[in-house]
Amino acid sequence: MRKIVYDVAVTLDNFISHEDGSVDGFLMQGEHATDYVERLKRYDTVLMGRRTYEWGYAHGLVAGKRAYPHMEHHIFSASLRFDGGAEVHVVDRDELAVVKQLKERDGTDIYLCGGGAFAGFLLDHGLVDQVVVKLNPIVFGHGVRLFGGSSRKVELALLESRPYANGVILLRYDVKYGGSA
Amino acid sequence: MRKIVYDVAVTLDNFISHEDGSVDGFLMQGEHATDYVERLKRYDTVLMGRRTYEWGYAHGLVAGKRAYPHMEHHIFSASLRFDGGAEVHVVDRDELAVVKQLKERDGTDIYLCGGGAFAGFLLDHGLVDQVVVKLNPIVFGHGVRLFGGSSRKVELALLESRPYANGVILLRYDVKYGGSA
Repeated sequence: MRKIVYDVAVTLDNFISHEDGSVDGFLMQGEHATDYVERLKRYDTVLMGRRTYEWGYAHGLVAGKRAYPHMEHHIFSASLRFDGGAEVHVVDRDELAVVKQLKERDGTDIYLCGGGAFAGFLLDHGLVDQVVVKLNPIVFGHGVRLFGGSSRKVELALLESRPYANGVILLRYDVKYGGSA
Repeated sequence: MRKIVYDVAVTLDNFISHEDGSVDGFLMQGEHATDYVERLKRYDTVLMGRRTYEWGYAHGLVAGKRAYPHMEHHIFSASLRFDGGAEVHVVDRDELAVVKQLKERDGTDIYLCGGGAFAGFLLDHGLVDQVVVKLNPIVFGHGVRLFGGSSRKVELALLESRPYANGVILLRYDVKYGGSA
């Protein structure tokens, strides 16, 4: 079964963005960014919440289009609507069943783009398989947490760590749900 | 001037303990723990808040005694009182002036033991010089944050990273306060 991989930039104090979704303060240039772009090429499917998708509008994304042209998009939202020409799938019901079906299909691992609320929802249901954090050398003080409002405790297994010259460090973990619900 | 170094175990989601101060889930054995004990030998002075000091009582610490025998202890609390035979200094006023005086004295770097609330208070006043986190492979979901209720944004400079076989990773950062208050 293919894995769901949450690949995300995070501050030392566990924030993936400021409260309003802005990300100033994260390092956007450098080898860690190049590596991230390389990883993205390996995913054929992306999952994200509505706010994460709409965040793209301010950065040139056209409503209904793909943020990542080579990936099949599934946007999880009860309110989002597009006309028949949309390139993305909107999932407005049976979210867990849809995610489980996607995991069972053939294909690459699945990119979980965010945001925190949606990632926390998946964590609560044991559906985040790996976390890849680009740990940025900054403390925000407040913002959107890595797993939103989730309070689930899980153990992790560190698979990979890679420090970059600019102070970002990449950490890849398997999520272990056994007995920790 | 000597540095104040906040040397602390933390979860991936930025918690240094559960809400009640307990720390089950953190890895206590292994090379990362040996290295921590080695680092402690290099400090001659320790700062901590009252709750962190009292947490030691459940682990064999006698009230008024030193938690780390070779260090001069400064416990920050408006309420704590010991009789004349106490081995520790209680700081119940002029906290910032006391900390600044300690930094100006001769000696080793100063160990900031915690907890989150006290570390956040020092961060708010630009007095945490380095952060050494033992990043544990676990997500707690809730607990006491690294900098308590502080909402101060600061940049960091990664000085050192070291992954251990058990999945803990040591990260040492300089704290950069310039223009980020």
